[in-house]
Amino acid sequence: MKNKKIKIVTIGGGSSYTPELIEGFIKRSNELPIEEIWLVDIEEGKEKLEIVGAMAQRMVKAAGLDWKVNLTLDRRQALKDADFVSTQFRVGLLDARIKDERIPLSHGLIGQETNGAGGMFKAFRTIPVILDIIEDMKELCPNAWLINFTNPAGMIAEAAIKYGGWNRTIGLCNVPINCMKQDSKALEIPEEDLFFKFAGLNHFHWHRVWDNEGNERTAELIELLYNPENSGSNNETVVANIKDSKFIYEQIKDLGLLPCPYHNYYYATDDMLKEELESFSTGKTRAEVVKRTEAELFELYKDVKLDYKPEQLTKRGGAYYSDAACEVICSIYNDKKTTMVVCTINNGSVSDLPYDSIAEVSSIITAHGPEPINFGKLDIPAKGMLQLMKSMEQTTISAAIKGSYNEAIHAFTINPLIPSGKIAKEVLNELLLAHKKYLLQFAKIINELDKQTLTY
Amino acid sequence: MKNKKIKIVTIGGGSSYTPELIEGFIKRSNELPIEEIWLVDIEEGKEKLEIVGAMAQRMVKAAGLDWKVNLTLDRRQALKDADFVSTQFRVGLLDARIKDERIPLSHGLIGQETNGAGGMFKAFRTIPVILDIIEDMKELCPNAWLINFTNPAGMIAEAAIKYGGWNRTIGLCNVPINCMKQDSKALEIPEEDLFFKFAGLNHFHWHRVWDNEGNERTAELIELLYNPENSGSNNETVVANIKDSKFIYEQIKDLGLLPCPYHNYYYATDDMLKEELESFSTGKTRAEVVKRTEAELFELYKDVKLDYKPEQLTKRGGAYYSDAACEVICSIYNDKKTTMVVCTINNGSVSDLPYDSIAEVSSIITAHGPEPINFGKLDIPAKGMLQLMKSMEQTTISAAIKGSYNEAIHAFTINPLIPSGKIAKEVLNELLLAHKKYLLQFAKIINELDKQTLTY
Amino acid sequence: MKNKKIKIVTIGGGSSYTPELIEGFIKRSNELPIEEIWLVDIEEGKEKLEIVGAMAQRMVKAAGLDWKVNLTLDRRQALKDADFVSTQFRVGLLDARIKDERIPLSHGLIGQETNGAGGMFKAFRTIPVILDIIEDMKELCPNAWLINFTNPAGMIAEAAIKYGGWNRTIGLCNVPINCMKQDSKALEIPEEDLFFKFAGLNHFHWHRVWDNEGNERTAELIELLYNPENSGSNNETVVANIKDSKFIYEQIKDLGLLPCPYHNYYYATDDMLKEELESFSTGKTRAEVVKRTEAELFELYKDVKLDYKPEQLTKRGGAYYSDAACEVICSIYNDKKTTMVVCTINNGSVSDLPYDSIAEVSSIITAHGPEPINFGKLDIPAKGMLQLMKSMEQTTISAAIKGSYNEAIHAFTINPLIPSGKIAKEVLNELLLAHKKYLLQFAKIINELDKQTLTY
Amino acid sequence: MKNKKIKIVTIGGGSSYTPELIEGFIKRSNELPIEEIWLVDIEEGKEKLEIVGAMAQRMVKAAGLDWKVNLTLDRRQALKDADFVSTQFRVGLLDARIKDERIPLSHGLIGQETNGAGGMFKAFRTIPVILDIIEDMKELCPNAWLINFTNPAGMIAEAAIKYGGWNRTIGLCNVPINCMKQDSKALEIPEEDLFFKFAGLNHFHWHRVWDNEGNERTAELIELLYNPENSGSNNETVVANIKDSKFIYEQIKDLGLLPCPYHNYYYATDDMLKEELESFSTGKTRAEVVKRTEAELFELYKDVKLDYKPEQLTKRGGAYYSDAACEVICSIYNDKKTTMVVCTINNGSVSDLPYDSIAEVSSIITAHGPEPINFGKLDIPAKGMLQLMKSMEQTTISAAIKGSYNEAIHAFTINPLIPSGKIAKEVLNELLLAHKKYLLQFAKIINELDKQTLTY
Repeated sequence: MKNKKIKIVTIGGGSSYTPELIEGFIKRSNELPIEEIWLVDIEEGKEKLEIVGAMAQRMVKAAGLDWKVNLTLDRRQALKDADFVSTQFRVGLLDARIKDERIPLSHGLIGQETNGAGGMFKAFRTIPVILDIIEDMKELCPNAWLINFTNPAGMIAEAAIKYGGWNRTIGLCNVPINCMKQDSKALEIPEEDLFFKFAGLNHFHWHRVWDNEGNERTAELIELLYNPENSGSNNETVVANIKDSKFIYEQIKDLGLLPCPYHNYYYATDDMLKEELESFSTGKTRAEVVKRTEAELFELYKDVKLDYKPEQLTKRGGAYYSDAACEVICSIYNDKKTTMVVCTINNGSVSDLPYDSIAEVSSIITAHGPEPINFGKLDIPAKGMLQLMKSMEQTTISAAIKGSYNEAIHAFTINPLIPSGKIAKEVLNELLLAHKKYLLQFAKIINELDKQTLTY
Repeated sequence: MKNKKIKIVTIGGGSSYTPELIEGFIKRSNELPIEEIWLVDIEEGKEKLEIVGAMAQRMVKAAGLDWKVNLTLDRRQALKDADFVSTQFRVGLLDARIKDERIPLSHGLIGQETNGAGGMFKAFRTIPVILDIIEDMKELCPNAWLINFTNPAGMIAEAAIKYGGWNRTIGLCNVPINCMKQDSKALEIPEEDLFFKFAGLNHFHWHRVWDNEGNERTAELIELLYNPENSGSNNETVVANIKDSKFIYEQIKDLGLLPCPYHNYYYATDDMLKEELESFSTGKTRAEVVKRTEAELFELYKDVKLDYKPEQLTKRGGAYYSDAACEVICSIYNDKKTTMVVCTINNGSVSDLPYDSIAEVSSIITAHGPEPINFGKLDIPAKGMLQLMKSMEQTTISAAIKGSYNEAIHAFTINPLIPSGKIAKEVLNELLLAHKKYLLQFAKIINELDKQTLTY
Repeated sequence: MKNKKIKIVTIGGGSSYTPELIEGFIKRSNELPIEEIWLVDIEEGKEKLEIVGAMAQRMVKAAGLDWKVNLTLDRRQALKDADFVSTQFRVGLLDARIKDERIPLSHGLIGQETNGAGGMFKAFRTIPVILDIIEDMKELCPNAWLINFTNPAGMIAEAAIKYGGWNRTIGLCNVPINCMKQDSKALEIPEEDLFFKFAGLNHFHWHRVWDNEGNERTAELIELLYNPENSGSNNETVVANIKDSKFIYEQIKDLGLLPCPYHNYYYATDDMLKEELESFSTGKTRAEVVKRTEAELFELYKDVKLDYKPEQLTKRGGAYYSDAACEVICSIYNDKKTTMVVCTINNGSVSDLPYDSIAEVSSIITAHGPEPINFGKLDIPAKGMLQLMKSMEQTTISAAIKGSYNEAIHAFTINPLIPSGKIAKEVLNELLLAHKKYLLQFAKIINELDKQTLTY
Repeated sequence: MKNKKIKIVTIGGGSSYTPELIEGFIKRSNELPIEEIWLVDIEEGKEKLEIVGAMAQRMVKAAGLDWKVNLTLDRRQALKDADFVSTQFRVGLLDARIKDERIPLSHGLIGQETNGAGGMFKAFRTIPVILDIIEDMKELCPNAWLINFTNPAGMIAEAAIKYGGWNRTIGLCNVPINCMKQDSKALEIPEEDLFFKFAGLNHFHWHRVWDNEGNERTAELIELLYNPENSGSNNETVVANIKDSKFIYEQIKDLGLLPCPYHNYYYATDDMLKEELESFSTGKTRAEVVKRTEAELFELYKDVKLDYKPEQLTKRGGAYYSDAACEVICSIYNDKKTTMVVCTINNGSVSDLPYDSIAEVSSIITAHGPEPINFGKLDIPAKGMLQLMKSMEQTTISAAIKGSYNEAIHAFTINPLIPSGKIAKEVLNELLLAHKKYLLQFAKIINELDKQTLTY
């Protein structure tokens, strides 16, 4: 273990995920000589910060560690001389996510907080804040790494690197981790005996798998996980997956790669929409469910005797996210060269994506950051969808930065989850009005829309 | 005028368009020393061939020309030593098109005979026939040019060149011609004083326009044709266009290029679907309307006194198609170097398309074929959609050649006009069964589907 | 003919080529309503300007035209409201070219005023001046076209467009014109019945040729021009060419494209070096020969009765250069869409060159500038050399702009006409010192070199 | 350690390097359950095979291992069921290398057994043999890995993969290993605390270096190894390197990457030529020196008491080569994921090389072969040279496969170490005649050259 003491800052520290993060650090305490952890939040999040912050302090204490866990609303104070900054905040809190999901659904469209209309608005709200944080970092901690897991993580990373100029940004997601665990269980081979190569975008990636005899197991996994004929298997993971899967088996077979669960939105759009409309009508959209779960979690966290991560958090849906952040930090600090799937600058590793854009790709995490393992080219149909999605992301980011309504409607038009035409414009307008508090870059157009609305 | 006498063969010669084609040749009789025109059709088209063929003979005679106009059902006899072969046939006739349109609509999907589910099935039916024709041409007229205007013209051209190995293939469409006429009228500048650069795919292209002072007029045309504020203009074309347009003006402004009318399917999908569902419910899908128009046209053609192209044909919808074919032939024969928009091998002229695929692009038509004018790169959002569409085309072509069900469902999945998931599979299956007579390459899967259907 | 009166400015107007330029304008007087021609030169060129300027005035008068031909040393006065600016100046005059050629040769290296060490120094001297001119143009004639034929024309065009931001730049050269004339004579087919496609860089391009029957004639031309077995042909051009050619026939056959004469430097480097060393030892390097020819030409020009371009100028070596400039101007002014070979921004037309760099490529010259005809990819060996040469050009340009010694030695190192190592550094240093008057951007390093030299 | 017993075959087993290979296996005996080692050679190498083979047997015995070390002239017998095949043969033995070096030098050209004229002939002689071996492998050991370290290793790997279709080919070289050792010594940091990224071609690669604090140390290494001002350093490696280096420091500084020693041929061509001509005149070309060293080594090997690798072999020049082969085998067998620099298919990892060509690039060696770490783009001047070199390689390989004289002269023409023109043709012809015994693919042209030679 190196000697240099570490200062870690978590923006959005009042999140319900924080206990997992703290647990992740505690697990690695022999590799990470942490001196201070700063949990930062904003005024609206103060209560949650205090609850979860107190719990974090109990966890550290219970582990017998001397780390200082500071809680603050003063971001700049926290950032000063930080080594690692993790970001897990949600602009507008869960209420904004509810709007992201329900407003599109009220028009019969998928909302979806990452790549659907909702996700695009999450990007519109989050990008200005991440760029602000970067401005502070340039001044206060110019050598720190930014580990982001706020969604849409790929777009946020691209904004941070290309527009913010912060090359020391790494985007993280728990989806690849879940995929690896699932593959391992389906094959009944330990994860450490498999080699995974992921490539694509955040929530839009595919992967291939090899075993330690040198055999590619991708085709076999497609059979296990998606061929309805395997619904009677003895393997629980296989059975559960086939039962839940909306994928058309024949299409996945043609694909020849393992999709990620979010591909359901693109490969089974119609079925996903039906399911979401059902949740909408019953008040059980994802955001609404999460909001209830969170409330329950914070009730638990209030328990002054609770000094470990409760089981219930794992069921919250974002498991492994924070652990991944801890592992990235640990691998950078110790030059461990762990292979992880991260959002980083493509530089040609995924041939079908623009050179200077962000890819989500298997990478070796070194002391100087992620070094992607080359993935190469995709087959024709996957390539086409990937390129469309990247165009959509880039148009969305540009609209977010410039506050351009024309770009925003263009991004909506090309998003495969949004039917184009008048309906797209209506949903766009309604979301702009609903989120106006967090969309200062669009103030001018929102103002005009406001007037039109008044007129009617 | 060169001396070499020309033999022209038209496959699908019984088409209602034939009079325009004949008129086109007659107009160019001083540039084209035609010796023979062969109109070829199949048994089912015999009656129409005889009606329109007799009329073609009357037209040639009335023009005082000594060309021999031969009618035949024997394709191989016609092809022998041909110089130019034009193809305008429709496998399964208009009844197949009715199925292409109505079956998807019956499931609430756009049918669309070029790029929707219907167009994909048109490709499935047509590609095997075009490859057969090419096999004959290799043997009987190895130096002939193949001028195709059967839809989907881009996919047919790609199949002919990449899979058939027939480099002397040119795909043609009347859409660019209509665009140029419209731009000219909107700007009130003669077509010959404008310079157009088109690029993209068949029924999915954009263009830019310059005047002869060197000024780009694209942005002005976007205003004239798509800005609702111009609905009170004095220019008829402008007013009519704004009234009919479904495009979201702000999106087109961001695009910065002039779309083609078929972009409505992609840029205003929801509105187009509504319109098509309306036609569906009233028995007025495009195919049904065309079927009635055609019947009327053939009634006219039966008139033994009619020896010129009747006005009604122009209203049929495919105006300028045949004239374009005549101009391509004339430009090749005379090395005229006319600038035309054709489907030809990309070779890098449209940077965002694969090098060896077919683009629809402004080209100089020389004696050795089309030489594309370089177009370069598109902006990000147009690029993404173009790349998706090309992937969809290529997956469709590959499925058509191999008879691969897996590729077919993958092509359906990525087609932006088809909602992916179970519904896509249902529509695919229903179309396969409906067209089984013309889809021998899919015989095995159709057979299985047939059995399943019986079971239910 | 349009009505707008034209103002043309020629920088380096005191050149011996000026009579050809004037003749070119006179020939096109019915297409070009010229109002004023300004011949601009610098103090050192005043005498030549006056001689050739007076002759230009006589030529215009003899042609019965009312154009005003103005002579000036005040560049800014001339540029005011210009429509076309042609540049044909030589920084340091022919004496600098003599150094460019003789200094390298004195070390046993090819000098060569375009791509050898000499040409690189010509770029170092010329680029700052062209950027200065552009600064003036931005202010005084923001809509003018810059037609450059100062060598190295490709690098100058790239500097003007990429670094000067002047997109309305066209680079010109007479080499393609000579190639076309030679091909036409070798094939005994009029130029207008042939179609040429050129691609590459200035003084480093290849081409293909087709006839108006659609047959490619490239392979036949390779036989005619380069196969020693044709040395007994009846065709004078063929015999003369085979006699003079240094190309290895088998290599050109493998190339499959027609090289340009400057390819001798790259394809027959050893033989060219021997020939140049011979000229060096006899005081007959190209620059020395040209200097004598020029002196003779100016003697002729002094003749107040001479009012037409004398035959001797054609033999000077740069024939067709100025005529090409006139044709470019005429084609822009009249939107003639003449096909010409020009240095313009690549934009993907030559696939193996960077998208945003300058290519020399067959283009349609429209009112809004050159539209390249797509060329596509080269075969492997041509591609490799082309990519090296473009890297060399770009490194040279960057060194010229930044005054970077490190980049200059790197450019020397990769130039295939310069043996790398100590000798390259010596020649670089000697040339820097020799041209120091014109290399202010390198002042710092030259100063250091000066001191070192004094020390020895 | 896995259980599967391993069979290893070494073609060219009579090489003087064999003891290092055996030592490498012995060192890894706890990781590699070897059952049999087969040393294969040809009739001419029989004596050497017996000498070094006996020594190998002694080494294994001395190590207390039960491996069977078989010696054979029957390649097919050896290949049967092999797991790993290493190739280290030299077609025509050292006498052929002497010709490769001396014939070009006799004309004043660099010979150089890897990328100069000599190296190209080594490719001409070796490629047919490697393809033969692959044909045998397809039949006898279809799952074996081919580990080649016969030079030119990059071209051999490309021929094996692209033309032989043997994807399980890995090319190896000791140059990167030496670079890493040198960098480590210059920085005084252990190799394992540095991270290296290599990219390029065999004997034409560059690299970057980072330490385990995340700092890039490349620029510092350029200073240490190439800045003459460091000639008085206290670090021996630094002093020795600066003393020996022919690189122009300023050029390397502009390069910004660490060159490999073979770059001297390209970056200091003139100085290398002088040095080689000196060796030529004194009978001390590399091949001649090696031939003497080898004779001495075999004298040593005859000693029946010698049962370990003698010190003298390390000085032979190829140290670490065989050890690298052992490590590759070990990493594949155990899925160790060691990072090594190997020749493997590029697949986009080095952006400036063709996708389907061979790159030499840092890779993770897994059970399914090398997974390159993405390198990305090079700066302009390095890119240009790399692209030329790859074109030269590919033209050479194609000439070798087809026996094409035209391609061979084209490859000579573009090779930057060969002055183009008549001299290139003379050297090519002389080498063809000198090596005719091993160049059956060129039999036709050699026959013609033979006749021409007789005529004179």
